[in-house]
Amino acid sequence: MIGHAFMGAAHSQAWRVAPRFFDLPLRPVMSVLCGRDAERTAAAAERLGWAEAVTDWKSVLDRDDVHVVDICTPGDTHAEIAVAALDAGKHVLCEKPMANSVAEAVAMAEAAERAAQRGVRAMVGFSYRRVPALGLARDLVAQGRLGRIHHVRAQYLQDWIVDPAAPLSWRLDKEKAGSGALGDIGAHIVDATQFVLGDTISEVMGTLVTFVPERPLASTHSGLSGTAATGQTGPVTVDDAALFLARFAGGALGSFEATRFANGRKNALRIEINGSKGSLAFDFEDMNVLEFFDGTEDSAVAGFRRIMVTEPEHPYVGAWWPAGHGLGYEHAFTHQAVDFVRAVAAGTDPTPTFADGLRVQQVLAAVEASAESRTWQQV
Amino acid sequence: MIGHAFMGAAHSQAWRVAPRFFDLPLRPVMSVLCGRDAERTAAAAERLGWAEAVTDWKSVLDRDDVHVVDICTPGDTHAEIAVAALDAGKHVLCEKPMANSVAEAVAMAEAAERAAQRGVRAMVGFSYRRVPALGLARDLVAQGRLGRIHHVRAQYLQDWIVDPAAPLSWRLDKEKAGSGALGDIGAHIVDATQFVLGDTISEVMGTLVTFVPERPLASTHSGLSGTAATGQTGPVTVDDAALFLARFAGGALGSFEATRFANGRKNALRIEINGSKGSLAFDFEDMNVLEFFDGTEDSAVAGFRRIMVTEPEHPYVGAWWPAGHGLGYEHAFTHQAVDFVRAVAAGTDPTPTFADGLRVQQVLAAVEASAESRTWQQV
Amino acid sequence: MIGHAFMGAAHSQAWRVAPRFFDLPLRPVMSVLCGRDAERTAAAAERLGWAEAVTDWKSVLDRDDVHVVDICTPGDTHAEIAVAALDAGKHVLCEKPMANSVAEAVAMAEAAERAAQRGVRAMVGFSYRRVPALGLARDLVAQGRLGRIHHVRAQYLQDWIVDPAAPLSWRLDKEKAGSGALGDIGAHIVDATQFVLGDTISEVMGTLVTFVPERPLASTHSGLSGTAATGQTGPVTVDDAALFLARFAGGALGSFEATRFANGRKNALRIEINGSKGSLAFDFEDMNVLEFFDGTEDSAVAGFRRIMVTEPEHPYVGAWWPAGHGLGYEHAFTHQAVDFVRAVAAGTDPTPTFADGLRVQQVLAAVEASAESRTWQQV
Amino acid sequence: MIGHAFMGAAHSQAWRVAPRFFDLPLRPVMSVLCGRDAERTAAAAERLGWAEAVTDWKSVLDRDDVHVVDICTPGDTHAEIAVAALDAGKHVLCEKPMANSVAEAVAMAEAAERAAQRGVRAMVGFSYRRVPALGLARDLVAQGRLGRIHHVRAQYLQDWIVDPAAPLSWRLDKEKAGSGALGDIGAHIVDATQFVLGDTISEVMGTLVTFVPERPLASTHSGLSGTAATGQTGPVTVDDAALFLARFAGGALGSFEATRFANGRKNALRIEINGSKGSLAFDFEDMNVLEFFDGTEDSAVAGFRRIMVTEPEHPYVGAWWPAGHGLGYEHAFTHQAVDFVRAVAAGTDPTPTFADGLRVQQVLAAVEASAESRTWQQV
Repeated sequence: MIGHAFMGAAHSQAWRVAPRFFDLPLRPVMSVLCGRDAERTAAAAERLGWAEAVTDWKSVLDRDDVHVVDICTPGDTHAEIAVAALDAGKHVLCEKPMANSVAEAVAMAEAAERAAQRGVRAMVGFSYRRVPALGLARDLVAQGRLGRIHHVRAQYLQDWIVDPAAPLSWRLDKEKAGSGALGDIGAHIVDATQFVLGDTISEVMGTLVTFVPERPLASTHSGLSGTAATGQTGPVTVDDAALFLARFAGGALGSFEATRFANGRKNALRIEINGSKGSLAFDFEDMNVLEFFDGTEDSAVAGFRRIMVTEPEHPYVGAWWPAGHGLGYEHAFTHQAVDFVRAVAAGTDPTPTFADGLRVQQVLAAVEASAESRTWQQV
Repeated sequence: MIGHAFMGAAHSQAWRVAPRFFDLPLRPVMSVLCGRDAERTAAAAERLGWAEAVTDWKSVLDRDDVHVVDICTPGDTHAEIAVAALDAGKHVLCEKPMANSVAEAVAMAEAAERAAQRGVRAMVGFSYRRVPALGLARDLVAQGRLGRIHHVRAQYLQDWIVDPAAPLSWRLDKEKAGSGALGDIGAHIVDATQFVLGDTISEVMGTLVTFVPERPLASTHSGLSGTAATGQTGPVTVDDAALFLARFAGGALGSFEATRFANGRKNALRIEINGSKGSLAFDFEDMNVLEFFDGTEDSAVAGFRRIMVTEPEHPYVGAWWPAGHGLGYEHAFTHQAVDFVRAVAAGTDPTPTFADGLRVQQVLAAVEASAESRTWQQV
Repeated sequence: MIGHAFMGAAHSQAWRVAPRFFDLPLRPVMSVLCGRDAERTAAAAERLGWAEAVTDWKSVLDRDDVHVVDICTPGDTHAEIAVAALDAGKHVLCEKPMANSVAEAVAMAEAAERAAQRGVRAMVGFSYRRVPALGLARDLVAQGRLGRIHHVRAQYLQDWIVDPAAPLSWRLDKEKAGSGALGDIGAHIVDATQFVLGDTISEVMGTLVTFVPERPLASTHSGLSGTAATGQTGPVTVDDAALFLARFAGGALGSFEATRFANGRKNALRIEINGSKGSLAFDFEDMNVLEFFDGTEDSAVAGFRRIMVTEPEHPYVGAWWPAGHGLGYEHAFTHQAVDFVRAVAAGTDPTPTFADGLRVQQVLAAVEASAESRTWQQV
Repeated sequence: MIGHAFMGAAHSQAWRVAPRFFDLPLRPVMSVLCGRDAERTAAAAERLGWAEAVTDWKSVLDRDDVHVVDICTPGDTHAEIAVAALDAGKHVLCEKPMANSVAEAVAMAEAAERAAQRGVRAMVGFSYRRVPALGLARDLVAQGRLGRIHHVRAQYLQDWIVDPAAPLSWRLDKEKAGSGALGDIGAHIVDATQFVLGDTISEVMGTLVTFVPERPLASTHSGLSGTAATGQTGPVTVDDAALFLARFAGGALGSFEATRFANGRKNALRIEINGSKGSLAFDFEDMNVLEFFDGTEDSAVAGFRRIMVTEPEHPYVGAWWPAGHGLGYEHAFTHQAVDFVRAVAAGTDPTPTFADGLRVQQVLAAVEASAESRTWQQV
């Protein structure tokens, strides 16, 4: 695994826990963790449970005992590492956003296609697909319980930089992060809605805004938790918020909003879908629940149902606890690891593929182009 | 109408509005308002829309142009007025609690029975029965959608005297009010649950508590809005909270709680019912909604539905606004007036009858007896 | 009052009830109701409580006993009636949308300005401003409790024509209605957000869509409840849904959506506002509640508060019931009548003025232009 | 660890995960799993990650490499194992309910006291204490934010045996389980409320009911997931539901309900507390949220706040994910393991102690006695 910050911890937990609750055809071994700083990487390996720690990711690709490379670094390094790993015959799980540009994503998708011909697999880490409630949402749409889809309303609301005194981190640096709210969290709602609908976005019209263009520099490394302010400030080079309207190929109309300035909303990934036969609503802040309106029922008793998505027949849930005993954020990563391992063992492509990741990247690029041109943009 | 405080205003609004939205076989005329103080009664009549104001309720019973007497006074006067009015051949609508004692309630029920033989009608004002969501609840239970009822959980939570500095009002005086939370709001949940279940409480075990036994005296009259404190205090002679367990004749187990000390709960009349086939939940603080769980559904999509009880086919709703345009507190009083007028015109007994009111009174008395004896009490 | 359908009933209730709960400097007299059909108008007058019924609205303007004209007709007639009434020296309360075009709205605003110089007043009926929770929202913003406003998220979701078999009504006819969801309900969220923010929309980018372009013709008159289908269909000439992004003059970013195709949402007028110090959220389906997040609090105890907007100190609430006893849809109309009468008596302009109404109309026109041009449009 | 069913899996996950997120002074080693059936125990050890599997729990006590015994068996075996383990110098973590009788619990508490003198520690597994929201609740009460506590409303609602065809399991057998809903889930709300209040229950009045007295026998072993019905039935010897009123030593009044027949409620452990200064509400079905009403605020903006208990400063949360990324059911077990290890390392008694467990057992026994005697019972 390359990288050991927030995502590194989540992925480590996934590899550790997956075989304890799910029957896996292959048993993951947590062999080597790779980071930039030797000391910090060694400490992380100890804490997260990796057998070894190294600082040169290229060295990992030469090892015969490494079959899977799990990429948890900032977006600017994804393309290089992923292409090299695939070309070296390693299966790759790559965190989202897949890349910082469409060009990089194209290269990655091509590498994945080449690799697939040799039985080597690639997957993008859009973890929210593996939240049981969104899996159930997809199933209900696929079963036709919503009929023709008219509306998609998707928001990803956070507030962690609403304070203008919050320091510059790598996530606010276009070089490292590619974009701001758009790529970080907007990418999630693009993928999640396309996944639930089984449809793709064909056209967008959007706008990007940076409410606080200058922020204090953190003292040393550019980590999320960069501390001691230096008194100096630097420019925020990414968007604080991204809003866009969208049309899906199948005719649905979408309204998307990704922001880090929604005061009081901590991780509110919300999706509401209205179809001719029914509707769905989801909010990650209440992640074990899916609301479902069945419009075919007698209107005297129709209403949005609060489905506790904790029944054994719900996606992934049977492996865990009895009904009503909810799951948490990290479980989606465990499910992702499970699906990845199963696909690799079965010799099939795990989803979302790099081609799926490319399609998300193209939507993000179209939003950026639209924000520039102030008009609709085809994807 | 006798009385012109909180309930007087609600009842006046009901008589005024009912014929504007509902087809009534008889048109109510708001002829005379009766109060204790001539000046204040005259002002109230003017404001509330009554043609005349008087101070002697007995004089009203002699008038030929008065066909209905609506009693909105404190509970200690209900029995005398109601019995006299019924004996005088006037139809009677009497606010709850019907009386301050079982003896009074018995006398009233007997008077109502005598009157009914002469075509004169009597009704108790348990207005919450006329909230559309509770009407729908009763319909669902009656249709068997809940199956055998196992549990009833009923709470009536308010907080208006949680501040120990809140003054003594007539509602805290046993002489006037009969009891505290028990008779004032506990009576409502007893009636509402018996109504929704179509069943009666047969046995109770309860306790009464007075958290603040002494309170400042209000200066002049004992109105709800008693002002300028005198520096003196007086004893609270009623309960601040009443809790009891109950068994219904049909086998359901009930848990009841009425309190004026639930900080932050303003008028939370809550009822939850669990049956072998489904469940219901209601909270008056969200009065246009009934939650319904249909346990016969596929568990993958089952969940408590939030039914907006604003559809034309819901009880009373068709006379009002389009779906989604909710009703308020006072609408239940309008519905009560409608049902009363229709029953009188049809020559049938409006419900809840005085016999129903007596049964509620017997439950309250059994709770008091149980609090005294510290054991279960038959109703 | 001109018109006696849905809005006619709501306005009648307002005039009837306002003086019973509020101290008014003038007492409204419900003298004459005007409609197109003599028989139906007479029946409506009887039911709604108007002394007289006429069919020629111009005749009303000649009467000395008429001081106020309340316009509740479809939008295509507003301009003509309102201008004539103002010019005839009658105070005017005009239902929203104020007009079907900017040109009409300009003429009306000019007439209002002329009239104001003679002490004659004009007001547009954006009733949701008078929902206590939105009044409180405006107060909190005005007090600076939200700080600098970053985001406005406004939706007005209904579902009454999601069924393709729902008949053509005048509301789906561009001639009569001007536009569809945009003018009917989109206008409300434009006004409500501008009201709460105390700011105006300066630029928009939007799209309009008609999901069901052809619908069955209702047999006779084009009323909302047009029945017996004829087998024939006709074209829907208005939008089923309108989505737009917006910038406010003060820098806030807005996302707006008005639709009649949100299955299961009956009257969900939702507004969420995020500022640098706090946030607000409102949903008309739970109209007595305002959610407020105070971002200045200790984060260990911060959270969206569910404020029951039923306290005596909340806007308009003191005139009604005790805390926790909620209001309904029609109360906003009563508050509107109260404010109108008070302004007329005080010789001041009631708000929203016709100039405010014009500004809303300009936003709607800019959305239409943007949908046409596929680019941003200045208001 | 002794036992490898539901609780065995939860405890294994705790031991595995705790050192990966928390700094622990000692590193847990998952050495040996003990069960009744050799084959099934071996399979469980493999799956759950234990190095060895044995079938004789006594053999474990002789081993020098075992320092901690974690008891996850049915309640009838707790006393014997725990006392032996403590006497053998092993630290003990024992699942709740601590025992099946007060006598057993007394013996265990005495053994724990003896052990403590030799530095050997004992703890009962009331895991819900370690849900961050309930930790925050306790903190707020301890800080005096609620003032004097008037009301406690606690419910633990499940529905897993509402179907009369659900088979007899060991949990419905008084021999194995001691009691039904009372000891299984009622024990949790007794402990949780005593924990949050920092107070103890002094007197109770309750009732127990068995709605379905006869159930199908499962074919072979008495596991939770007992399969193939035999056609025969057996008696349910425990309660399906337990309700009781309670008085706390500090004067608060409690209403408790534990049931397995609340159709649609899956694992609704709900606690509402009302004090003179504020209130709290919690529902495990939304476990990352605590609702808090601050009654000292200006009533115009007071309301129940939905605190997302996912901030770094909330109990245990700092070790996990960023704000808004919720935890799940099993995290409470991880926190329990953390606190246990830290207390053992620090040479202090982890809480809840066996003395705390005994006190819960005494409350349960008083409820049973009260159900028998039909009167109040001192604890």
